[in-house]
Amino acid sequence: MARPIVVAFDVMGSDHGPAEVVRGAAQLSLEAPHIHALLVGDRAVIDEALAETRHSGERIAVHHAPDAVGMDEKPADALKRKPGASVLVAAGLVASGEADAVVSAGSTGAGVLACARTFELIPGVRRAALASVYPTRRLHGQKEDPFSLILDVGATVEATAEDLVAFAVMGSAYARIISKNTNPSVALLSNGTEAQKGPPRVVEAHQRLASLPKVRFVGNVEGVDIPKGTADVVVCDGFVGNVCLKMLEGVQETVVELATYAYKEKLRWRAGMAMLSSGIQRLKDVTDWEQYGGAPILGFDRIFIKAHGRSRAGAIANAGKVAAKSVAHDLGRAIRENLT
Amino acid sequence: MARPIVVAFDVMGSDHGPAEVVRGAAQLSLEAPHIHALLVGDRAVIDEALAETRHSGERIAVHHAPDAVGMDEKPADALKRKPGASVLVAAGLVASGEADAVVSAGSTGAGVLACARTFELIPGVRRAALASVYPTRRLHGQKEDPFSLILDVGATVEATAEDLVAFAVMGSAYARIISKNTNPSVALLSNGTEAQKGPPRVVEAHQRLASLPKVRFVGNVEGVDIPKGTADVVVCDGFVGNVCLKMLEGVQETVVELATYAYKEKLRWRAGMAMLSSGIQRLKDVTDWEQYGGAPILGFDRIFIKAHGRSRAGAIANAGKVAAKSVAHDLGRAIRENLT
Repeated sequence: MARPIVVAFDVMGSDHGPAEVVRGAAQLSLEAPHIHALLVGDRAVIDEALAETRHSGERIAVHHAPDAVGMDEKPADALKRKPGASVLVAAGLVASGEADAVVSAGSTGAGVLACARTFELIPGVRRAALASVYPTRRLHGQKEDPFSLILDVGATVEATAEDLVAFAVMGSAYARIISKNTNPSVALLSNGTEAQKGPPRVVEAHQRLASLPKVRFVGNVEGVDIPKGTADVVVCDGFVGNVCLKMLEGVQETVVELATYAYKEKLRWRAGMAMLSSGIQRLKDVTDWEQYGGAPILGFDRIFIKAHGRSRAGAIANAGKVAAKSVAHDLGRAIRENLT
Repeated sequence: MARPIVVAFDVMGSDHGPAEVVRGAAQLSLEAPHIHALLVGDRAVIDEALAETRHSGERIAVHHAPDAVGMDEKPADALKRKPGASVLVAAGLVASGEADAVVSAGSTGAGVLACARTFELIPGVRRAALASVYPTRRLHGQKEDPFSLILDVGATVEATAEDLVAFAVMGSAYARIISKNTNPSVALLSNGTEAQKGPPRVVEAHQRLASLPKVRFVGNVEGVDIPKGTADVVVCDGFVGNVCLKMLEGVQETVVELATYAYKEKLRWRAGMAMLSSGIQRLKDVTDWEQYGGAPILGFDRIFIKAHGRSRAGAIANAGKVAAKSVAHDLGRAIRENLT
C-alpha cells in the first residue's frame, strides 16, 4: 500500500472552536483510509474533543502547539510573539517532512505569513495568491461543476503584470487537479473585453498570457462574467478579487432582504415571497461552497488549504481531501512546469 | 417666471435609435414646464420622430448635428474625425450658453471625452468620475431611497489618493442634491474596514478624508457592503467600480439562471421556481434603475448626464429631470465649495 498522505490540521482559529476542526478530522479518518490527520494545537483540548468523537485511532495523531493566533490580533505581530502558534507549528511540520499539507480555518493573513516564513516560493513566482471557488451560472469541465475559481482574493493587494501571469498559471493548474477540468479556460478580469482595456498591469499581463502556450487564455472578462462563469478561472489582483468575492457573499443575503422589502410593499406578494425565501435556500444548498472545503494559498512549494472560518466538520473533512488531492497530484510541480 | 432650464439631448447613440430619445424629450416637454429640450442630431430624423409624437412645441427646439459616434468606433478617433458629432455639438451648446446641461445615451467614452474637450475641470479636480446609482438592501436618506451611489465606474481607470478624495466630495454633493439626502455617508471601498487596509492610494485617501470636514466620511467598506448599502456613497477607482457595477448587473440575471438550474435538479421545486421568477421580476420593478434616468459625469464645470444605452423614453425624460435638478441646485458650485 502507498504511503498515506499526512495532513496537518491547525485546530485553533475556527469560528466554531477547536472541537469542530477535530470532528472534521475524525470524520475524515473514517472516510479516507489513505489520509492521516495530524492535529496541531492544545493537546488537552484536542484529546478531550477526540474522546467524544468517533474516529479511527490509527489515522489520527496529535502534535501539541502551545499558542494560537487570535482573530483580533495582527498576524505579523502575533507570529512574532508566538513561535508556538498552531498555524506556524503545522507549517513547520510540513517543512520538516512530518506532514504533507496544512489545513487551517484560522486567520488568512496568519496563514499566508506562516507559508512565507516556512515554505519556499516556487521559482518564477514572486507573490502568493489565495484562490477561491464560487458558484456560477455556467457549468464547468467534465464534472459539469457549477463553480469557477477566482484568484487572488486577498494575499497580494497590488499585483504586477508578472504576478498576474503567475496567478493564471497557478489557477489553471489548481483547476485541472481539483475540478478535474483537463483544459480550464483562464481569463483576466478587466473593465472591458478588448485587449487594451484596463490599467497598464492588466494590459501587459494580457499580452504575456496571449503568448503563453500552457494556459488556455480566453482574454479579458468583465464583472458581469463573474456570476455568469464565462471562464473557469478568473485572474485579478488581491484588492479587486477580495472586493468581488465579498460582493458575491453579500448578494444572496441581499436578495433575501430585497424580497422582504418588496413583500412589505405589496401584500398580494406575501405568498410569492415565502416561496422566494425557500427557493433561495434551495439555491444555497445547490451551490454550497462547503463541498469545496477551502481555498488554497498558491505559490509556495508546499500545500496550504485555508478553510472558511465558519466551516463545520464536513467542510473541514473536505478541505483535508482537497489538500491530499493537491499532494497526490503534485500541484507544486504542475505549477512549476507550466511557469517555464 | 424663472428662465427655463435648457437641456441639450444628444439624440444619437441610443440602443433604441434616435426616435426613442426624441420621445423621451417629448414626454418631458409635457411633464416639466420649467425645462426646455434642445434636440441635437440629424434634423430630418428628429423632425420625423417629433411629427409622430405628442409634445409641447414651445418647449422643444432642434439643433442640427451632421454626425454621430458609432458604438463600434473608438471615441478618441471618432471625435477627431467628426467635429459635427451630436455629443460634441451638444456639449458645445452648453459651453456657449445656449443650453445648461447635456443628456446622452451614447458611448460613455465619447461623453467623457466630449466633456474633457469642451468643459473645464472644477478647480481641485484632476480627473473626472462617472457615478452610478444602484439598488441596495438598506434605505437611504429622508426619501428612504433604496439606492446608493458608486463612483468612479469607469471614467478614471487608475485613481490617485487625491482623485479618490475629489470623487468623495463630488459623490457627496450629488447625493445631497439628487437623492435629497442632506448628509450622505461616504465610504472608501477596500479589502478590509481598518484604516490601514488596501493599496497605498486607498490608505492615503482614507487619512485625507478622515480630516475633511465637509464630507461625512464613515471609513472603509468591503465588497459585502455594496449590495447591503452600508454607505450612501461608495468611492473607488474606475477599474474596481466598473467591475463592481457590472457584477451587480450580472447578478440578477444569474439568480434567475441558477433558479432554473435548481429547478432542473428537483421536479418538486417546479412551483417554487415559477414563483421565484415572478418574485425576481417584482424585485426588478421595485429597484428599477430607470427611475434615476442616468449617471452623471462629475468633475467638470458643466452638467453631463449619461443615460443608459438601453433607456426607454421614460428613462430619458428622467435623465432630463436629473440634469435640470443638477443645474437648478448648482451642482458645480456645491462641489467647488466642498473641495476647498
